Amino acid sequence: MKKIIGTSLLFLSFSVFGQTKEDSIQFNKISTEILNNGKGYIELKELTKTIGHRLSGSDSYEKAVKWAENKLKDAGADKVWLQEVMVPVWTRGKESLKIKVRDGKWLNLKMLSLGNSEGTGGKDISGEIIMVKSMEEYDKLLTEQVKDKIVFFNYPFRQSFIETFKGYSDAAKYRVNAAALTAKKGGKFAIIRSLSSAFDDVPHTGAMYYEDGGPQIPAVAIGNTTADELANYLKNNTVLAKLNSNCGMKGEKNSYSVIGEITGKKDKSVIVVGGHLDSWDIGEGAHDDGAGIVQSIEVLRTFKKLGIQNNHTIRVVCFANEENGVRGGVQYGKVAKENNEKHIFAIESDAGGFTPRGIALQMDNEKINQIKSWTELFFPYGVYNFEGRYSGTDLYPLHDMGVPTAELVPDSQRYFDIHHTEEDTFEKVNRRELLLGATTMTQIIYMIDKYW
Amino acid sequence: MKKIIGTSLLFLSFSVFGQTKEDSIQFNKISTEILNNGKGYIELKELTKTIGHRLSGSDSYEKAVKWAENKLKDAGADKVWLQEVMVPVWTRGKESLKIKVRDGKWLNLKMLSLGNSEGTGGKDISGEIIMVKSMEEYDKLLTEQVKDKIVFFNYPFRQSFIETFKGYSDAAKYRVNAAALTAKKGGKFAIIRSLSSAFDDVPHTGAMYYEDGGPQIPAVAIGNTTADELANYLKNNTVLAKLNSNCGMKGEKNSYSVIGEITGKKDKSVIVVGGHLDSWDIGEGAHDDGAGIVQSIEVLRTFKKLGIQNNHTIRVVCFANEENGVRGGVQYGKVAKENNEKHIFAIESDAGGFTPRGIALQMDNEKINQIKSWTELFFPYGVYNFEGRYSGTDLYPLHDMGVPTAELVPDSQRYFDIHHTEEDTFEKVNRRELLLGATTMTQIIYMIDKYW
Repeated sequence: MKKIIGTSLLFLSFSVFGQTKEDSIQFNKISTEILNNGKGYIELKELTKTIGHRLSGSDSYEKAVKWAENKLKDAGADKVWLQEVMVPVWTRGKESLKIKVRDGKWLNLKMLSLGNSEGTGGKDISGEIIMVKSMEEYDKLLTEQVKDKIVFFNYPFRQSFIETFKGYSDAAKYRVNAAALTAKKGGKFAIIRSLSSAFDDVPHTGAMYYEDGGPQIPAVAIGNTTADELANYLKNNTVLAKLNSNCGMKGEKNSYSVIGEITGKKDKSVIVVGGHLDSWDIGEGAHDDGAGIVQSIEVLRTFKKLGIQNNHTIRVVCFANEENGVRGGVQYGKVAKENNEKHIFAIESDAGGFTPRGIALQMDNEKINQIKSWTELFFPYGVYNFEGRYSGTDLYPLHDMGVPTAELVPDSQRYFDIHHTEEDTFEKVNRRELLLGATTMTQIIYMIDKYW
Repeated sequence: MKKIIGTSLLFLSFSVFGQTKEDSIQFNKISTEILNNGKGYIELKELTKTIGHRLSGSDSYEKAVKWAENKLKDAGADKVWLQEVMVPVWTRGKESLKIKVRDGKWLNLKMLSLGNSEGTGGKDISGEIIMVKSMEEYDKLLTEQVKDKIVFFNYPFRQSFIETFKGYSDAAKYRVNAAALTAKKGGKFAIIRSLSSAFDDVPHTGAMYYEDGGPQIPAVAIGNTTADELANYLKNNTVLAKLNSNCGMKGEKNSYSVIGEITGKKDKSVIVVGGHLDSWDIGEGAHDDGAGIVQSIEVLRTFKKLGIQNNHTIRVVCFANEENGVRGGVQYGKVAKENNEKHIFAIESDAGGFTPRGIALQMDNEKINQIKSWTELFFPYGVYNFEGRYSGTDLYPLHDMGVPTAELVPDSQRYFDIHHTEEDTFEKVNRRELLLGATTMTQIIYMIDKYW
């Protein structure tokens, strides 16, 4: 009953906002072109298998810059350029974490230093482990209880959230703040249970930050199985840990975001579609965020291939340094402001190359409602969820300038099994899921370009 | 705008059909219980890794019967029993397909005989290959063009359908009918391009059928890459093929569907939830349909664990022989009729253990509309699509008896990459996706049990 009434209301809305049979035909052309001839999947294979992971500041990131420049040209961009940006240079190097239970032998644990963490300078740092299960529990500890200890934050990823991004947000403070909190009470270093929805032993890295001027002690992550084992040892035993790591910040370096566009036929105002070109320094950065990069390039290619006359300039931005600084996103916003470039809409894909389900919208309610009025057009493509909410890291500088911003919302169930791990590889990406994401992005940009 | 109006209409519908805050709380309890404590994923690992594939008639199927019986008892069923059913016994044995291009050497092709196909009795059958790209093209061939030839049906899976089940339905006639059609014009055997959405070389088996009394010539499938290579050879060359296979129907055998139930507290009428226990004889039958089995058992376990008072009897049916005969489904319907058992609803899961998106409903419009009026309850769980359409193979006998039937609709993008292949393994199943499917099934049964 609801459906029937909903549909008739929608027909009413056609006259209010404009939406025609022609749009439905164009949606079909877009999906057919991308599902049959899309290059995103092959390009993702190239990026992940010939370049691999690509942390900003690394040589492989510079290779990715060249690669993206070429792909944007191949896709038919009228103009391709590099946008200079200063990025931090963080490197990992050799690292190991060992534990000793009572008078036993030192046992090696699978681990990863967190991104941005300082290491031990190649020396051993050791001490007794104390475990807390939550921030609240840690807050109750006195300084003398933490001093010279190693704090193990064993907060498990909450499985009960339906959208895993909520579980991620819930647990992220442990990764971001563990070192700073441990340092404040005189601890030697921090160990966190990985922000992982999987039931495995894969450690997840990701950005942590120190307080300005605070002590820079190391922070490392261990996988879920190791975390459970460690918790088990700690029940009845004194457990020592010994960390040796060479990671740390090695200054800054000039690098680039990569930008390509097709010029607007009526108007030079800009629609941005993007993802981030950098990744963590392990795995292949396939879902995070090779997927967003190749999907964005696919949007441009599809407009050219189908000969869709874009009123506005459609600009693909491959942002630098999202993972450990967001310098690319900030720089893009700054330059756009300096050049007085009018942006009418920006969308990013940075939640994995999984089947699309919706678009997160961060803009005024009138615009949100207009996009919602297009729901029936998207529904046959499995895209039904248009909600006003946060729209992604690289676009917040544009959002702060008043630009309506958006983010592709793919199915989130598998993302935090592999996010920031050695498991984020090309093999984990499904061709159709990836290309359907590119389809959704092309469709929304087609609508925005036509009606805004 | 539409959304807001839709919601207020829904509140109106509360009073019409009944749906309360209490239901929303119960939905949350169900999902939390299953996502935190669900056993489906561990049980699927047991089924796939200790038993593996389990074609009806095989010893491994009989092991699966015992396993399912035990799992239903563990889950807390009040009553567990085996329902006898006569099943066909089809076996594969050794098989090989070779080709020779002009005067070259015989090259081995990766292949699978189609299920139910007769083989060559261990002898070589060879001849020249002719290729058609569609049924229409085949229909135009004269008998003398096909006689003594090997027909290669090279019809590619259509990528452009958004729901891959439509692509599967579109291509299925080639698998089902290739042998019968080839035989009619005197061909020696048939080769089909696999019904596969992947861009790889994995052959997909699946059921084929002969015409009553028609010649029983062999039919085999090859993967997409091999099909492309073969098509390429055929452009300018005579290509011979040689098949040697031992597959074939080996009579019939007594076997069992496995059934367990929790007795209705108010009423003995039955709600069925099920999947099929058999699988093809390769891979592990993880998505097809181990997933449906463990999800159905999870429904029963969750009712017991949460102490939900079920008004009606909730019955889990693990159907025998869906893949090559549907004897279990037919027998279940027959016995239900003989015993005059009233069934008020039946739902199956047989489309893979992927993230749920909706429920297919095959029933009268009033009932469909009632279920649609519950959409807002399901929406937070990513389940939004309630459509009147086909509801699954094992339930059609119940449907034909007038029972309202339904099928879980998971995301379909990855299913036909691995369907009926050696790749349908436990590793391809994601824990959260699988358990969310069980959540949806438990939630819909909770609603039906309460309001019907």
